[in-house]
Amino acid sequence: MISNSSKFSLVQVRGTWIRQAEQHRLAEGKVSEAKIYENKSEHGVSWTVVSPIVFTYRVIQCQNLLDPTNDTLLWGHLGKEELKGTMDNSKPVKRIVVIDETVNQLYGSQVTHYLEARNVVHKILSLPTTEENKGLELVTKILEDIHKFGIDRRSEPIIAIGGGVCLDVVGLAASLYRRRTPYIRVPTTLLSYIDASVGAKTGVNFADGKNKLGSYVPPVATFLDRSFFQTLPPRQISNGMAEMLKVLVDARLTVESDLPRMALMKHRGLFELLEAEGRKMLHSKLQSCSEQEDSAAASTRIAIETMLEELAPNLWEDDLDRLVDFGHLISPELEMTVLPALLHGEAVNIDMSFMVYVAHQRGLLTADEKYRIIQCMLALELPVWHQDCTLALVQKSLSERLRHSAGSLRMPLPTGLGCAEIFHDMIEDSILCQVYHKWTDELASSGNK
Amino acid sequence: MISNSSKFSLVQVRGTWIRQAEQHRLAEGKVSEAKIYENKSEHGVSWTVVSPIVFTYRVIQCQNLLDPTNDTLLWGHLGKEELKGTMDNSKPVKRIVVIDETVNQLYGSQVTHYLEARNVVHKILSLPTTEENKGLELVTKILEDIHKFGIDRRSEPIIAIGGGVCLDVVGLAASLYRRRTPYIRVPTTLLSYIDASVGAKTGVNFADGKNKLGSYVPPVATFLDRSFFQTLPPRQISNGMAEMLKVLVDARLTVESDLPRMALMKHRGLFELLEAEGRKMLHSKLQSCSEQEDSAAASTRIAIETMLEELAPNLWEDDLDRLVDFGHLISPELEMTVLPALLHGEAVNIDMSFMVYVAHQRGLLTADEKYRIIQCMLALELPVWHQDCTLALVQKSLSERLRHSAGSLRMPLPTGLGCAEIFHDMIEDSILCQVYHKWTDELASSGNK
Ligand SMILES: NC(=O)c1ccc[n+]([C@@H]2O[C@H](COP(=O)([O-])OP(=O)(O)OC[C@H]3O[C@@H](n4cnc5c(N)ncnc54)[C@H](O)[C@@H]3O)[C@@H](O)[C@H]2O)c1
Ligand SMILES: NC(=O)c1ccc[n+]([C@@H]2O[C@H](COP(=O)([O-])OP(=O)(O)OC[C@H]3O[C@@H](n4cnc5c(N)ncnc54)[C@H](O)[C@@H]3O)[C@@H](O)[C@H]2O)c1
Ligand SMILES: [Zn+2]
Ligand SMILES: [Zn+2]
Repeated sequence: MISNSSKFSLVQVRGTWIRQAEQHRLAEGKVSEAKIYENKSEHGVSWTVVSPIVFTYRVIQCQNLLDPTNDTLLWGHLGKEELKGTMDNSKPVKRIVVIDETVNQLYGSQVTHYLEARNVVHKILSLPTTEENKGLELVTKILEDIHKFGIDRRSEPIIAIGGGVCLDVVGLAASLYRRRTPYIRVPTTLLSYIDASVGAKTGVNFADGKNKLGSYVPPVATFLDRSFFQTLPPRQISNGMAEMLKVLVDARLTVESDLPRMALMKHRGLFELLEAEGRKMLHSKLQSCSEQEDSAAASTRIAIETMLEELAPNLWEDDLDRLVDFGHLISPELEMTVLPALLHGEAVNIDMSFMVYVAHQRGLLTADEKYRIIQCMLALELPVWHQDCTLALVQKSLSERLRHSAGSLRMPLPTGLGCAEIFHDMIEDSILCQVYHKWTDELASSGNK
Repeated sequence: MISNSSKFSLVQVRGTWIRQAEQHRLAEGKVSEAKIYENKSEHGVSWTVVSPIVFTYRVIQCQNLLDPTNDTLLWGHLGKEELKGTMDNSKPVKRIVVIDETVNQLYGSQVTHYLEARNVVHKILSLPTTEENKGLELVTKILEDIHKFGIDRRSEPIIAIGGGVCLDVVGLAASLYRRRTPYIRVPTTLLSYIDASVGAKTGVNFADGKNKLGSYVPPVATFLDRSFFQTLPPRQISNGMAEMLKVLVDARLTVESDLPRMALMKHRGLFELLEAEGRKMLHSKLQSCSEQEDSAAASTRIAIETMLEELAPNLWEDDLDRLVDFGHLISPELEMTVLPALLHGEAVNIDMSFMVYVAHQRGLLTADEKYRIIQCMLALELPVWHQDCTLALVQKSLSERLRHSAGSLRMPLPTGLGCAEIFHDMIEDSILCQVYHKWTDELASSGNK
């Protein structure tokens, strides 16, 4: 790509960055990871800059996040060294918390109590962070309040507490404020715990498009506490279970290749776990009753670990081949079409159910595996079929995908329970039609919604 | 920082990313630069993700950018390899151009002619991209038009043509659209050519704060063509010259350490060049008359190279020690106080003039060097003093700086002609007062504005 050009490293000498041709080093100093390539021709000069930015963030699973004796909410985003520097500093601690209105009704007094007990100068901004309000106006409102409150961009992270909408909107506001202000995610729904918690994506809806605007700026930290799920309605739990099931496409390989961490779950992949214990987890709202790692703790841990594995190497989604897109090829179109009838995870589940039929048709899954997956979905009280998920909608979604994915379908399909591959070729219309009818014949009547 | 934890690499095996403890490698495959650290304690699990994102962008100096036989505007952002892939593709070429209203009056017909001659499906969006309009509403307007026009986020970069305001606003819109859409910068003022052209910063004003919102997303390419300067009023040229003078703080070291590229300018740093030829360049609006590299071509090239050296290793401004902040410690406050009396570069120049006095007081510059710098500024028709740049304003600016820079002043000062260092300690009030009065005594009457 960059032939015929000179390559320069950058060396810092007494505060000044200077470039040095690779061949002759003249100065000693700190060398940057960045490189500059220079090309001269009769038309002029051109430079190519290659500059890496390193994102570092923490994901912490803990209990009793709102207990004033727990340091996590205030200091969990810092490493031991950074923490020491901050503690030595006598400045009063200052935080702005943006919280979903419903969550505030349920947990607001605990949050206030925590901040008061810790002597934190604070502001709690409670907002209706719903899907309908997920737009630029809400971002602007948050920015105005952040600006009025006044924070130190280096040391006073903005805290977001709520479902995926709240985390996405606050993340976008934080990434814009002074070009980047640190923020913390505290997911309170299962769906956002599994998914919005671990990656870098922020976003709002725009011009009828879902998450059409946003940024890729990870939080400094995400704090995961399952006790928030206690107040979630059952449908919201099922909704999140769908994003957990999504991970089935690559959870087993992970687990097998990494024996030391398996402990309790040895030799059972996430799918087997959900199959055996999913219903119980649903009814207990993923609360743990013992100190030991039980199925709720294990399944959320495996799901987060698997998501981190897939997202960390591809934080800005430069690689278009993404297993985590499983369930997200047809569902965006379906979700927007039937809005607000289906929740995100429900639409994702219908998409996955259809894809399981595609995988079976291709000989990637046996009839038994197909049956087990669908049964597991039903047990989790998730819809596996929907009348508005028509053949035309499926076809449209897949051709859109083809158009936006640089000429390849990049369709993740399960190739067993706990493994998957990405397929590139478009599905022939006759095959698609055949699969669609089989899917409808077998599942149309199983609708539990 | 990350002691007591296990470190995992990420390896891609058949499309799936799996983590592997550093000690036992089980699978072969592509290894990611990203790492995951895991920490287990009685309270739960925590992970630290370290994930680098590599930004690559081109800066191209060329002539006749709007000549339909010049490929740069359409294809300059691509490397040879990428270009081949795109050319094989029979899809019609599509571009949206966002252009400053004044620039459109002057160059709009040439832009249209170019796009028509090249059979490009296009839309030209002409907007009043002024400092007063530099806000989120303008960004929203641009986003709506981009969305209506419809572009392929992978292959159809948005083109911005105008001064720094236009480039900053379009850059922000592009960085938000679908979380990141490529864009191209075509600066038409000298100031934006030298400064806004080479870095990653985008931005808009918010709540009376200058550039309070924005992002760090570089363009895919910047195309530099000095012929746009022909229509600039003289004051705008002087304005840009100030940002070029800023570079004097580290231009000489660069040039000396990198002999091969010096050609015409051998052994003369940027400052000497501006001192000798600045006035002539001002009056010729930096146009070249010969094929050879003359002072206009050389000085802009050196300025760009020096800016690239300072910005590439610090694209997201994580390092707070920045030489390019020279002239930018007092000027933001001054600029906002007297708005719109001073242009950005003029305020920057007044700041630099004061800092030259500080440097002289500290024994970093001789009386002769101080004199030469001030004379050079005056020759470039730049203000070196302003009545609203009071001692109180200087003091306020420096203490604000101290507050926002993690407890250190980080003040770049010239330590000669063409070299500089960063100083950390706050200046004593008595010294500041002394310098201020000397500065006022000597320069108050020299005001050429
Ligand atoms: N950034 C990402 O990577 C990412 C990933 C997945 C989803 N998302 C986004 O997340 C959003 C969906 O998230 P969601 O499902 O959390 O929706 P949501 O934020 O709308 O929350 C769902 C409902 O649950 C309520 N709620 C939240 N916590 C509660 C609690 N503890 N007890 C009782 N009620 C509670 C909320 O008030 C809301 O009514 C979508 O906008 C989606 O685009 C983002
Ligand atoms: N992103 C960055 O790194 C960066 C760096 C420096 C400055 N900036 C920003 O850039 C802005 C200042 O840029 P600017 O000085 O270019 O101001 P500007 O964009 O306001 O342009 C100045 C004036 O010149 C006119 N103009 C532009 N090109 C012309 C041409 N070729 N002929 C005749 N008239 C022309 C414009 O219409 C405008 O009236 C500020 O908002 C500043 O914050 C950004
Ligand atoms: Zn999802
Ligand atoms: Zn500037």
